[in-house]
Amino acid sequence: MTSHASGTGSTTPDDPGFDPRRFDAVELIRLKRGGSQLSPEQIRWLIRGYTRGHVADEQMSAMAMAVFFRGLDDDELAVWTRAMIDTGERLDFSSLPRPTADKHSTGGVGDKITLPLAPLVAACGVAVPQLSGRGLGHTGGTLDKLESIPGWRASLSNAEMLAQLGDVGAVICAAGSGLAPADRKLYALRDVTGTVEALPLIASSIMSKKIAEGTAALVLDVKVGSGAFMTREDDARELARRMVALGEDAGVRTVALLTAMDTPLGLTAGNALEVRESVEVLAGGGPQDVVDLTLALAREMLALSGVDADPADALRDGRAMDVWRRMIRAQGGDPDAPLPVARHQHEVTASADGVLSRLDAMAVGLAAWRLGAGRARKEDPVQAGAGVELHAKPGDTVRAGQPLLTLHTDTPEAFARAEEALAGAVEVGAAPESRPLVIDRISR
Amino acid sequence: MTSHASGTGSTTPDDPGFDPRRFDAVELIRLKRGGSQLSPEQIRWLIRGYTRGHVADEQMSAMAMAVFFRGLDDDELAVWTRAMIDTGERLDFSSLPRPTADKHSTGGVGDKITLPLAPLVAACGVAVPQLSGRGLGHTGGTLDKLESIPGWRASLSNAEMLAQLGDVGAVICAAGSGLAPADRKLYALRDVTGTVEALPLIASSIMSKKIAEGTAALVLDVKVGSGAFMTREDDARELARRMVALGEDAGVRTVALLTAMDTPLGLTAGNALEVRESVEVLAGGGPQDVVDLTLALAREMLALSGVDADPADALRDGRAMDVWRRMIRAQGGDPDAPLPVARHQHEVTASADGVLSRLDAMAVGLAAWRLGAGRARKEDPVQAGAGVELHAKPGDTVRAGQPLLTLHTDTPEAFARAEEALAGAVEVGAAPESRPLVIDRISR
Repeated sequence: MTSHASGTGSTTPDDPGFDPRRFDAVELIRLKRGGSQLSPEQIRWLIRGYTRGHVADEQMSAMAMAVFFRGLDDDELAVWTRAMIDTGERLDFSSLPRPTADKHSTGGVGDKITLPLAPLVAACGVAVPQLSGRGLGHTGGTLDKLESIPGWRASLSNAEMLAQLGDVGAVICAAGSGLAPADRKLYALRDVTGTVEALPLIASSIMSKKIAEGTAALVLDVKVGSGAFMTREDDARELARRMVALGEDAGVRTVALLTAMDTPLGLTAGNALEVRESVEVLAGGGPQDVVDLTLALAREMLALSGVDADPADALRDGRAMDVWRRMIRAQGGDPDAPLPVARHQHEVTASADGVLSRLDAMAVGLAAWRLGAGRARKEDPVQAGAGVELHAKPGDTVRAGQPLLTLHTDTPEAFARAEEALAGAVEVGAAPESRPLVIDRISR
Repeated sequence: MTSHASGTGSTTPDDPGFDPRRFDAVELIRLKRGGSQLSPEQIRWLIRGYTRGHVADEQMSAMAMAVFFRGLDDDELAVWTRAMIDTGERLDFSSLPRPTADKHSTGGVGDKITLPLAPLVAACGVAVPQLSGRGLGHTGGTLDKLESIPGWRASLSNAEMLAQLGDVGAVICAAGSGLAPADRKLYALRDVTGTVEALPLIASSIMSKKIAEGTAALVLDVKVGSGAFMTREDDARELARRMVALGEDAGVRTVALLTAMDTPLGLTAGNALEVRESVEVLAGGGPQDVVDLTLALAREMLALSGVDADPADALRDGRAMDVWRRMIRAQGGDPDAPLPVARHQHEVTASADGVLSRLDAMAVGLAAWRLGAGRARKEDPVQAGAGVELHAKPGDTVRAGQPLLTLHTDTPEAFARAEEALAGAVEVGAAPESRPLVIDRISR
């Protein structure tokens, strides 16, 4: 984003005299392997050297594995994150007349919250510059969902993005390649080397992009449960704590909500299915958990931005829906066009009378993925209409033979593998013990 | 070694239908990262996949780091080692009329023992097929040392090697590229990714080559101390135990000696300097520690081969020297040619009167390396004459101003950095507490 003419500032940090001989990558790996703290100079050299190709992939993957076992302390993590930001450009929305706030979710099954949330918060007077990604694995990607809307396009120029933020107040688009290029390279490496799960690397990956994006405020939705990246509450809490610290230290007002992800959010998992449900929420309806979480996150974003407004009003009176329609149109989409529907459907029914005690999020996510909603490799296409529709949620009373799930796909041979994924994921019996949707709120 | 015609058998295992989709490298890394035992099928797939390039360098380095932290149990290690052997050919010397025995040292400063040992053991009736390497880092390589003899060549064909083993009884030559190619690839990777120190990977690297080499008996000299790869006795003992088990399980009679490496072996560290000292030992003289260790290792090799002979006799009566001269000549060398001498010398003197209490092996090794005796990268040349000559050893009484060390190099600008390496390495004071040269003997 170098378009100063269009009103947004951006800075690409100089890379003055990187000295490949200043440190030795093997020595740094051995230091971290032995549990030592790396110095700021060492970390900056490592990240810059890796981005430039001086530190090789096989060295960085060994380092990532050493970090998995040894961790990074708060000082190391702050320098690491900053070093990743400094490999690329940094956006600056301070020229906008409105405050900016963004949200990041660590990913959950049926997590379509960004779709109603961005227009809702914009309708309350806060600009939302949401740079998103595509999905890989069992949780869908926000861009994949929106691309099921005929005509909608994810790629915007910097000038288009800024103009839309000024006009509409909300933009959801693909992150450009100029933000934290070190992170893109490192994430791709971690993905193929079994080092994704290193907690400090998760925190620095998320926060380097969000800080570089230039938002003034950030709300983190850290999911915990069977369908989340973090299955243990302790891990999720620690990740939230570290990300909040990174944001605040970088001057981004940051709060995290710890939210439950044991069962899918709402009643749909799949691209067009989730768009449909998001539109229902914007129309004042929709499943209660989706509405509740959307409002909880909106309230945090507004509070961090110093805006005193009740987002529930903007849902009720149609202002959020208006912003949604303008946001979709601004990116070439037709908000009135019928959404794609999968060519084949298959129902899964309840095997007994009773209370639905469990409907496992991971299993539903995996089933949706196998039906075609997700991709195994970056270059794979996704099916717009594929996914899983839920007809009951844990706590609901069901009768034997009643439809519990409808599976959607264009490729009916996928039904068998989707049902395999669901084996054991549905339990009918006693009422579930459930934790609240919002488990905790973590701020500095 | 496919030259059946020349009398040596060799087998290159088939690689029937390697299935790249049978396992997922990321999943195997995650299993090991979590502390799981890998199955034999998984290990074989990993090693074969890595050798074929299906498992990428960055995946194998992450796996190696996971192994550093999680280890491999005895079953995993046996399969891992066998899988590395099975990526290449396996020599077979059973057609020789004499038993075969070999020695491997984990490397120490001034460790020239292979040079007198191989001809000595051969003189006692046991064939010694010693496949060696070049040095990297502070300990020299056996081939580098022998290459300081005018005309001597390290590369032999399989037919030449077999003929020389039959005629002379001893051969010291470069390991061909057909033995355990997985190890060559993995070792080069570990070297640049800070994962050399993973104990099971050290054991499998050494033993895969020695087992593939086809020796019937093997004596391991596992060094422990400041100048050794292993500085802690516990680690050295564990490495010895695991290597002995690997050898015995593969049908190679194997014993390990744990030997002290706190001070250099003998009075020289450097290529031609060590050849000169080895010839002194073969002539019935030489430093006592070199003689003692040579005899101790020779006795183990003879005992494992069922040969009842006293190697001290073969040193005393010149038979070992005869074999040495024939061995050098058989590989093109002239045992009577003067050895190269470095162009510049510099003396380091004692700073006080007293007993030499410490002369640190690592520092001497580093000094010799900086003087030109060793190489930083595989492709670097070494200086034949460079190195360090000792005039006193710990326990000797010295007077202030007396020469302690003579530094040798062709590049006099190296003296300063060599002296830097020696700073603090020499102590004159109380008599040292010393451990015996042979600390322990480890057999199954």
